[in-house]
Amino acid sequence: MNKEAHDALPLASATSGSANALEELRRQIDHTDRDLVALLARRKGLVMQVANVKKEHGLPTHHPAREEDLISTRRAQAVQAGLDPDYVEDLFRTMMRNSRVGQLNTLGRRSVRPGAKVLIVGGKGSMGSLFARCFTQSDYAVRILDVDDWPQVRELTSGIDLALLAVPIALTPAVALELGPHLPKDCVLCDITSLKSEPLAAMLRAHAGPVVGLHPLFGPNTVSMDKQIVVTTPGRESAACQWVLDQLSVWGSLAVDATAEEHDWMMGIVQALRHFATFAFGEYLCAREVPISRTLDVSSPIYRLELGMVGRLFAQDPALYAEIIFATPERRALLRDFIESLNRHLDMVDRGDKQAFIEQFKKVAAWFGPFSEQALRESSFLIEKLVHRF
Amino acid sequence: MNKEAHDALPLASATSGSANALEELRRQIDHTDRDLVALLARRKGLVMQVANVKKEHGLPTHHPAREEDLISTRRAQAVQAGLDPDYVEDLFRTMMRNSRVGQLNTLGRRSVRPGAKVLIVGGKGSMGSLFARCFTQSDYAVRILDVDDWPQVRELTSGIDLALLAVPIALTPAVALELGPHLPKDCVLCDITSLKSEPLAAMLRAHAGPVVGLHPLFGPNTVSMDKQIVVTTPGRESAACQWVLDQLSVWGSLAVDATAEEHDWMMGIVQALRHFATFAFGEYLCAREVPISRTLDVSSPIYRLELGMVGRLFAQDPALYAEIIFATPERRALLRDFIESLNRHLDMVDRGDKQAFIEQFKKVAAWFGPFSEQALRESSFLIEKLVHRF
Repeated sequence: MNKEAHDALPLASATSGSANALEELRRQIDHTDRDLVALLARRKGLVMQVANVKKEHGLPTHHPAREEDLISTRRAQAVQAGLDPDYVEDLFRTMMRNSRVGQLNTLGRRSVRPGAKVLIVGGKGSMGSLFARCFTQSDYAVRILDVDDWPQVRELTSGIDLALLAVPIALTPAVALELGPHLPKDCVLCDITSLKSEPLAAMLRAHAGPVVGLHPLFGPNTVSMDKQIVVTTPGRESAACQWVLDQLSVWGSLAVDATAEEHDWMMGIVQALRHFATFAFGEYLCAREVPISRTLDVSSPIYRLELGMVGRLFAQDPALYAEIIFATPERRALLRDFIESLNRHLDMVDRGDKQAFIEQFKKVAAWFGPFSEQALRESSFLIEKLVHRF
Repeated sequence: MNKEAHDALPLASATSGSANALEELRRQIDHTDRDLVALLARRKGLVMQVANVKKEHGLPTHHPAREEDLISTRRAQAVQAGLDPDYVEDLFRTMMRNSRVGQLNTLGRRSVRPGAKVLIVGGKGSMGSLFARCFTQSDYAVRILDVDDWPQVRELTSGIDLALLAVPIALTPAVALELGPHLPKDCVLCDITSLKSEPLAAMLRAHAGPVVGLHPLFGPNTVSMDKQIVVTTPGRESAACQWVLDQLSVWGSLAVDATAEEHDWMMGIVQALRHFATFAFGEYLCAREVPISRTLDVSSPIYRLELGMVGRLFAQDPALYAEIIFATPERRALLRDFIESLNRHLDMVDRGDKQAFIEQFKKVAAWFGPFSEQALRESSFLIEKLVHRF
């Protein structure tokens, strides 16, 4: 806060001429920065006006073509002004992201079925309350059915248009079967668990009307649904379920279709196997008492990022991970298969067989194909961010 | 590029009044953005002037206190202007990073020992040529000794002030012993391999003068040494080696001291174990023919980031990774120990023993302590970046 105090230090050894010159330049930088903040505020005001015009006329929020066009123009202006175009693109992407989130807060509350009645089962849990909040903000009549509310199930289900199951994976099928008989015929029944086959089958058994299985790929702490993916596994009467998907899209999320079987197989890899491997690595660091903070002192940003991936797992709910990892016999078989595949490397490791390693490495690299180059670029971009942020 | 063509599309269904209003607002946004780019260029000009004043008077480039002060002031201005302070901080940190890199390009060439003679052994390799370029730009007299130049070793070593070994890990000790007898008494001998005990011992045997082991934690493609870490393992006559470390610091890097033993033990974890675990995961995906691009379709940004870490490994040099992973018998023992630790989880997996998992998880989480919360915050920041970038 006290600029004079800071600046006095390094200048003490310099001539007072250079001290004055620096002081004047810093004053001008501060002035420029004030103007920058003012322009950012002006930009935000204009973007909100655009959002309001669009809202009035029911126009779509996103306009990817205009965004890319804007970026190209800014890049050209950057080059003309003697600036690095990547640097300027980076700044404008940050601004546009901020605009999108701001627009979603204005437009993203639009209801595609105003006044419809929504029952959130498990509405006091973390994901349940997130959805309850979103539906309430979009003027739906939201009711909560939590564990103690089953005596009121008749009143709570009366006349509802949507029942959303937000209960733990293991309970979802049983809750669907319990709830089913109380649902109005045209009510949409959906769940949001990270497993789809069994819950979807149970929902189809429990309810004769529209059914859809959803897997939102974000946690309860998500700041905005902007660009967040929701995997959608159709059950029955897709047309009647569409308004629910449209509402998710108004909130900014992107729907990706999959069958329940494909979804579950892929999540075995993407969630169960990945989380298990991360858990096993963290457990090993703990068992060997590796001094984390000292390793961070002597490490590159990439290790910081990788260790961060391990650390972040352990900041979260163990029960949720236990549910995901041990969800089905297929998943447990996958994990066993993975551990056994590691044992097959033992020989190579014991012999220090660099040649075998290099050959396997090349085979995997060829299989990854262009993805690995892209991954290198993307992660290098993030590492840059990490270096300048912390 | 053709703005009218893009904008016409979504407006076709709207009234021409709203079309005009949108057009006008977009014109104003473009105008604001032009002013923003102009201010960014003005800011860059001022920062370069600051760099020049500092250069003239030999003042330090970095001024972390002023940077934090500037961020605090901008955050306060952001709040006053109705903007999210985190968003404004993010933009200004990007600008300051750009400034630092720009200043380093001006100031970072200063030589702490102008005209000194530097021999890069392995100077045609990727890391060797990076250092050759840096020393040359800072007005050192750089000589290269590559594999074919040994017949000229006498001329090449005559009167040199620094010999820097940039050869593969496995060759470093032998090259040091070969070179040692030719070095002037006061010449600094250093290496840059990622293993330190054996190379440092060899350098101390080979040369009676100043010796220091360095491990730069960045690759040959690094854009700038700004904030990059160099682990420094002292050998002999630290005071006489100091100018080399000072030069690295002028280039922007941060020196971290460690003993060779501590360094090697930690790099066993940070590099060998981590890379091996990543390799094993990638190898498994390949063996099971997991459809990478489809898993990316149905995945959250965190998986994209984690898979990116795997993919990026396979975009790099297998021989380098083989060297790092299989460097010493201790490292191979560590890898074996890790694989065996995974086998100990098999029982828990087969039984689907969630309770055992939860208990182990909690133990590891407690051991990680505040790091895991911090990792969650840092990685969430990066995930935000990833979502809005791609």
